Amino acid sequence: MKTKLLFPFFLFLFCLLTNAQTTGKYVLVIHGGAGGMDENMPDSLKQEYLSSLNKALEIGEQILANDGTAIDAVEKVINYLEDNPLFNAGKGSVLTSEGKAEMDAAIMSGKDLSCGAVTGVRKIKNPISLARAVMEKSQHVFFAGEGAEKFAKEIGFKFVNPKYFIVENRYETWLKEIKKKKKGTVGAVALDKFGNLAAATSTGGMSMKKPGRVGDVPVIGAGTYANNKTCAVSCTGWGEKFIKNTVAFNVSAMMEYKNMNLRDAVSEMINNRLSPDDGGLIAVDKDGNFTLQYNTKSMLRGYVTSDGKRDVIIWQK
Amino acid sequence: MKTKLLFPFFLFLFCLLTNAQTTGKYVLVIHGGAGGMDENMPDSLKQEYLSSLNKALEIGEQILANDGTAIDAVEKVINYLEDNPLFNAGKGSVLTSEGKAEMDAAIMSGKDLSCGAVTGVRKIKNPISLARAVMEKSQHVFFAGEGAEKFAKEIGFKFVNPKYFIVENRYETWLKEIKKKKKGTVGAVALDKFGNLAAATSTGGMSMKKPGRVGDVPVIGAGTYANNKTCAVSCTGWGEKFIKNTVAFNVSAMMEYKNMNLRDAVSEMINNRLSPDDGGLIAVDKDGNFTLQYNTKSMLRGYVTSDGKRDVIIWQK
Repeated sequence: MKTKLLFPFFLFLFCLLTNAQTTGKYVLVIHGGAGGMDENMPDSLKQEYLSSLNKALEIGEQILANDGTAIDAVEKVINYLEDNPLFNAGKGSVLTSEGKAEMDAAIMSGKDLSCGAVTGVRKIKNPISLARAVMEKSQHVFFAGEGAEKFAKEIGFKFVNPKYFIVENRYETWLKEIKKKKKGTVGAVALDKFGNLAAATSTGGMSMKKPGRVGDVPVIGAGTYANNKTCAVSCTGWGEKFIKNTVAFNVSAMMEYKNMNLRDAVSEMINNRLSPDDGGLIAVDKDGNFTLQYNTKSMLRGYVTSDGKRDVIIWQK
Repeated sequence: MKTKLLFPFFLFLFCLLTNAQTTGKYVLVIHGGAGGMDENMPDSLKQEYLSSLNKALEIGEQILANDGTAIDAVEKVINYLEDNPLFNAGKGSVLTSEGKAEMDAAIMSGKDLSCGAVTGVRKIKNPISLARAVMEKSQHVFFAGEGAEKFAKEIGFKFVNPKYFIVENRYETWLKEIKKKKKGTVGAVALDKFGNLAAATSTGGMSMKKPGRVGDVPVIGAGTYANNKTCAVSCTGWGEKFIKNTVAFNVSAMMEYKNMNLRDAVSEMINNRLSPDDGGLIAVDKDGNFTLQYNTKSMLRGYVTSDGKRDVIIWQK
């Protein structure tokens, strides 16, 4: 074989081998928070939510369809939702009782259980990306508050002014609806073509929460969990209840130890362990089965799969 | 019946009923950290450790034997270990890479899964008592850093100077052993006469940890867990590994879903899921079975039961 043919040949071989290792199958499921959205909301706003969920799915599908990884897909999907002021994460986060945005986020790879989480960050545009940096570039897995931002600075993360997160609407809400609690989070779970699962969740937390309150989102096993042996889970709702019930890991444990299927394990958590109006979760298992369940009035959600399933939904269908 | 006899009669009835509700059986298990303690350490120091563990057991037993609750017992035991500079919790905590004590603690009641946790507190003499206050007096279950101390102030907690926690020895260690990682935590689990389980863990964390690092201790389900259906667990060791493996809840899940007994479930975690030198844990189940297992060189530990079992131990027996 001529030397100049060697490179293309090896490239061909590499592609062949890489391709052989993929299943060709991918699944992406997302949520934009469980809560009590009014079905009589203006159609224009409804459309804004649905088109935002659609856009998020597109971003993730683009990655997964092109042989990208589940961890990249969930991070980029969450980045989009964090930047979108309609959702309670990143820009548009709800505010603490002191009128500040304090954000939590966590990401986990089902391949090796590696994970990263941050709580109480105030100046990081995309908390989920800082959580990923904690996972990949730190000897620790979980950082709080100023320490999280100190780590961010060390590794050269860009900071934004805390005012960036506060959209007028949220501030007015804060002024008006003192003590009326709001739920909401954004999350994504994915199965990639390599059979790897990943989960990511990001949130501004509970409206009017006390400063320093840590919710379920950054608590690995409570609001976020992924394990290639079982499933990937991202939760949304009343964080305290999700911590007490170790919800995300519990779904995985029921599958691993009790041989329950994904749908039944999630249903057990949502309908029997949690109480009405506590929240919801999305999950995908190692075989690509997925489920989106909640016990609130609404859950912003959507999914897309390699075999052509796709939808975005707010209320019960 | 004469009126003046009514009070003693009802008191007698109350005592009879209360007593009838107790099983008469209690168990207390404690640890003072897993690590690599040298068997050739001076005998005087060895005796100091053993007598401190003995004292901690006495405090807890006093409560449990007198019909006290598991939650009171584990809190008071931890208070003693926090105040004792020999252990890595409260006074005597190891220091961060910036030379400060930043402490984590969590407590959980198996009765109703209520729980409380704090991370990164710097001025609270007994972090476990603040965790208990979070559980009992807050709408949240987990507070970080300044927010935790703001909550402490609101409910009238006493503050101490951050210097209080730094014992000379620890400071010298910090100066000398830069980057040499140390493990250590204090923990207690108990079954009370009313059949209720509780777990509590408190720590200065990992020596030379970065500021803001959150370990497994305050992560409910990772370092601390209690559930009357199964068991109470308190862990010690390399926190990041305990978070990834959701160790404390995992033990409970194997019992609940796989019908494993306590000893086997703990052994599966310590010997198969974790790696050598990761750490250890103590656990007691709803029937009063208990186990203390670790994969490090040493684990400071002890137990006492209503049926006369009692020991304090450092290395393998």
